[in-house]
Amino acid sequence: MSRAIHDHSQWGMGDQLGAGNYLTPEKRLEALALVRQGQLFDLSHIIEYGAPRYEPVQTPYLLLGAPNWQGALRRRRQAGATNDAGSNLERIEMTTHVGTHIDALGHFTVGSEMYGGNDASEVSTDFGLLKLGIEHAPSIVSRGLLVDVSRLDGGEFLEAGRSVGPEDIERCLANNKATIRRGDILLINTGWGRFYMNDNVRYLAGEPGINLAAAKWLTKQGVTAIGTDTMAVEVLPGEEAPAVQMPVHQHCLVEAGVYLIENLMLTPLVDAGIAECCFILLPVKFKGATGSPARPIAMV
Amino acid sequence: MSRAIHDHSQWGMGDQLGAGNYLTPEKRLEALALVRQGQLFDLSHIIEYGAPRYEPVQTPYLLLGAPNWQGALRRRRQAGATNDAGSNLERIEMTTHVGTHIDALGHFTVGSEMYGGNDASEVSTDFGLLKLGIEHAPSIVSRGLLVDVSRLDGGEFLEAGRSVGPEDIERCLANNKATIRRGDILLINTGWGRFYMNDNVRYLAGEPGINLAAAKWLTKQGVTAIGTDTMAVEVLPGEEAPAVQMPVHQHCLVEAGVYLIENLMLTPLVDAGIAECCFILLPVKFKGATGSPARPIAMV
Amino acid sequence: MSRAIHDHSQWGMGDQLGAGNYLTPEKRLEALALVRQGQLFDLSHIIEYGAPRYEPVQTPYLLLGAPNWQGALRRRRQAGATNDAGSNLERIEMTTHVGTHIDALGHFTVGSEMYGGNDASEVSTDFGLLKLGIEHAPSIVSRGLLVDVSRLDGGEFLEAGRSVGPEDIERCLANNKATIRRGDILLINTGWGRFYMNDNVRYLAGEPGINLAAAKWLTKQGVTAIGTDTMAVEVLPGEEAPAVQMPVHQHCLVEAGVYLIENLMLTPLVDAGIAECCFILLPVKFKGATGSPARPIAMV
Amino acid sequence: MSRAIHDHSQWGMGDQLGAGNYLTPEKRLEALALVRQGQLFDLSHIIEYGAPRYEPVQTPYLLLGAPNWQGALRRRRQAGATNDAGSNLERIEMTTHVGTHIDALGHFTVGSEMYGGNDASEVSTDFGLLKLGIEHAPSIVSRGLLVDVSRLDGGEFLEAGRSVGPEDIERCLANNKATIRRGDILLINTGWGRFYMNDNVRYLAGEPGINLAAAKWLTKQGVTAIGTDTMAVEVLPGEEAPAVQMPVHQHCLVEAGVYLIENLMLTPLVDAGIAECCFILLPVKFKGATGSPARPIAMV
Repeated sequence: MSRAIHDHSQWGMGDQLGAGNYLTPEKRLEALALVRQGQLFDLSHIIEYGAPRYEPVQTPYLLLGAPNWQGALRRRRQAGATNDAGSNLERIEMTTHVGTHIDALGHFTVGSEMYGGNDASEVSTDFGLLKLGIEHAPSIVSRGLLVDVSRLDGGEFLEAGRSVGPEDIERCLANNKATIRRGDILLINTGWGRFYMNDNVRYLAGEPGINLAAAKWLTKQGVTAIGTDTMAVEVLPGEEAPAVQMPVHQHCLVEAGVYLIENLMLTPLVDAGIAECCFILLPVKFKGATGSPARPIAMV
Repeated sequence: MSRAIHDHSQWGMGDQLGAGNYLTPEKRLEALALVRQGQLFDLSHIIEYGAPRYEPVQTPYLLLGAPNWQGALRRRRQAGATNDAGSNLERIEMTTHVGTHIDALGHFTVGSEMYGGNDASEVSTDFGLLKLGIEHAPSIVSRGLLVDVSRLDGGEFLEAGRSVGPEDIERCLANNKATIRRGDILLINTGWGRFYMNDNVRYLAGEPGINLAAAKWLTKQGVTAIGTDTMAVEVLPGEEAPAVQMPVHQHCLVEAGVYLIENLMLTPLVDAGIAECCFILLPVKFKGATGSPARPIAMV
Repeated sequence: MSRAIHDHSQWGMGDQLGAGNYLTPEKRLEALALVRQGQLFDLSHIIEYGAPRYEPVQTPYLLLGAPNWQGALRRRRQAGATNDAGSNLERIEMTTHVGTHIDALGHFTVGSEMYGGNDASEVSTDFGLLKLGIEHAPSIVSRGLLVDVSRLDGGEFLEAGRSVGPEDIERCLANNKATIRRGDILLINTGWGRFYMNDNVRYLAGEPGINLAAAKWLTKQGVTAIGTDTMAVEVLPGEEAPAVQMPVHQHCLVEAGVYLIENLMLTPLVDAGIAECCFILLPVKFKGATGSPARPIAMV
Repeated sequence: MSRAIHDHSQWGMGDQLGAGNYLTPEKRLEALALVRQGQLFDLSHIIEYGAPRYEPVQTPYLLLGAPNWQGALRRRRQAGATNDAGSNLERIEMTTHVGTHIDALGHFTVGSEMYGGNDASEVSTDFGLLKLGIEHAPSIVSRGLLVDVSRLDGGEFLEAGRSVGPEDIERCLANNKATIRRGDILLINTGWGRFYMNDNVRYLAGEPGINLAAAKWLTKQGVTAIGTDTMAVEVLPGEEAPAVQMPVHQHCLVEAGVYLIENLMLTPLVDAGIAECCFILLPVKFKGATGSPARPIAMV
């Protein structure tokens, strides 16, 4: 689509990697060089029944603990086994946007237009995406930059509907004497994550987040992904809602080919006062899926 | 349980991390120091409908591509939106042992005994594991050692039922002038992986793999995990089948607290002639699940 | 099990039909003879997302509307079709105890004892019931007797926790000059059904229903099934709760082999002043399932 | 849509009942009058894992036997119960076109046109059909006419691809001295049902069935539904395949508002030599679903 091509003409029509193209061996070495103590921070939430979701499009996460060890013992004894090997299994039913997860570029459209000049009426099928599915997302090993905007308004977190603009981000970066480089993963802590599984009604009723201007400024800097401690990265309700809905998703995923990481748990980094880290997120390659639950980590 | 405690008395009753205890900051630094070119290898298969599984306990993997962009456009227009933000989603139904994945320590039992002295009748519930679920597995960033046994019999792969013993592994390690260290991830390439999704009937009918002696030898060396390009790591049918079934799973998971990684795609490493790497696997924290599909990577 | 055998020694060990044995050709003719005008009443609720359920054991009902006509058109055109046959399908995830449904005799146990002298540790498996599943329930075509207890306390419905005893039922039957005969289906209207999908929180918080004495009195009369406009037929909380839980389910299903029909919509019969009817319920034969959603009807 | 309106202008635009409009009280009395001995025949198959389905649009049927009695005992004991009430439950994942089932009028389209002048792009949503879903299908109590065409070619069953035309049906009806009346349910036995679950590969590879001429002749006679012992009622491959696919579904469901009943088990009627019966099928009211598994019965 024109807009997407305009933004990233260097990658051309049909590209499925987007800003993942910035993740070069050099970029990985730059990120790994940040690890000096071997300290590891888990930036993900546990995924369980009742995980926050947008009704009704995001269907409930469910896990059933069967078949289990007892049936296995019975079956294996009947098959002549004497060592009583019991195996526990489960059945999970879920969307890929549950818990801490990353969005595939194919998660959003502008009308029928998708990233890379693709047409949703061709790409989006009953059995998943024929292109731009999460299996095309890169293994992310890159430099992570933490931007803690949680205290900008004096409290411990920003309120729902509070827009985070380019100036807010620049100010925080300046405080950290940090500058964005191509391929960086921008991690924005709003403090809103404290409500995850503690008060899901509030967590979902709205959220602080970046506005379109911030999104465009960040994609212009060449970030590969933007992650937050919220459901949607972008401010909700949006600045021009209801007329304009989810513009940050449209710009980042469809126009800029930049990935979004949601429901991150960033407090470990904030508490440790870490502004720069080696960030790793490895999306599971569910064919044609629009995202993947994940367990991102940060190392220093 | 006595055996588990005997093996790892240093971690004690109630430990849920097992050989993940070896993954210290020092071990991570040792692993990261192996990355010189920033080259990254994806060691996972794409997960799709028809992925190999053991009937009937491993239920079919399914992805339905809905809700999709069209319904979203309709709903958002009705809500007053003019920017046509379409979102694609899906519903996935699966076990966690689909595609490339890691087993949680709670995946297996010996009778009702589980790792760490736990009783399956208490821990295994209708809604998953109360202990030893995959959310307790570590983020793995460690040294990976490739052991390519695929050509030991002259062909390009070992046949189903072919046991890989300690001596086979030692020979391959010797060829690489490599020795196992505590916390290493042992990656065994049997060549059997070539049948994954190409001939699932054959892939599932049996497989080459390590025998109990090899498993005990490896856990004694202090490996944190053992991964293979097969469904089950261990030789199938087993050396004492049907009387003894899945003994390697019992020893590694229940007795030794050592993780198993299955359905790996190791050819990229083999083709590049890489015997030693920085191995990373980040299990998704599905609460109470017995494993997690994953996207492990290797870097050099 | 002793109790079950004691109650129905005439059917003996291993019987899977229970009080369905009363449904003879003669009984069916008796029921059909009640139909004079050919009037039909639908006694079921529509089953939809959000249907009331007991958390967490009764998992959410879910329907996803895919694959749909558009994908079908695409696929068939690619296969050379010119007649644009679009087909809509869906995926449903549910328990069988959703909406208006009937319980299979295998739904409940007393310890490990099940109806017909069966042992739950043998019969209940990871893949459903080996015996006493809903596929063994009869096609019910029998005489239905409506007992409207809703106004016994002066209001339009009985309150949660209100026990309906034998005397209450006898009084209502006397008013209708009706007497119970073998094989009858007893339909008890408490008025509580008004909260179904209108106030599910209240609907589930407790309910009026029969007590154990009433259940025993009814099974002694030889009814084949008992149905109500509530979730559980029996009064909740029970008269001896929490020490004794779900005693009516235990007595009817396990001891007496009498079926329970739940979440009925009985107002059509009440409004039409119909006390006696031809009642038909045809359980879908889901192999090994503990019940079946259904669409029972009444005819006069 | 014009064709649909042309066929049934008497029911008009927006009608959702179709040929169900023929099911009057008089028709029910006519059907019930056929029951003289009270004999009941079950015309349905048991629904289980592995039930035949058209890949990939009809997704696998699955039942998991959990939660079960043991967890219930544990939970209730913890809640203070002493009567050990164990409850068994399950989770089912299915399409509604599994096993013996009935199609809703909204199951098919002609392009974007649906029965009653509806537009599929409005009616078919991510969460099911807004109109023409199975909850709008009637409770069927009507006259059933058995047409046994299984031996027309000398064997015990017709071969796949064998078209059953109007003349075939008329011949069989003449042999039975039977004539079709408005609201009848036509039950066509091809003998193909013998392969159901015995040889699903063959059962699905093609089938004998009615051609478009027969479908048009039957809907002209005013039948309410057509049922067969096959997956699709219509001959497969069709007479004009691949150019024309599923024309009988299009004509019956979209144009004529006539219901289709599939995977019937008709041998009990054939063996008993019953040509005329009281037929009952009660579709479960899954909101917005395109069909419903069912347990149809016949009585004489």
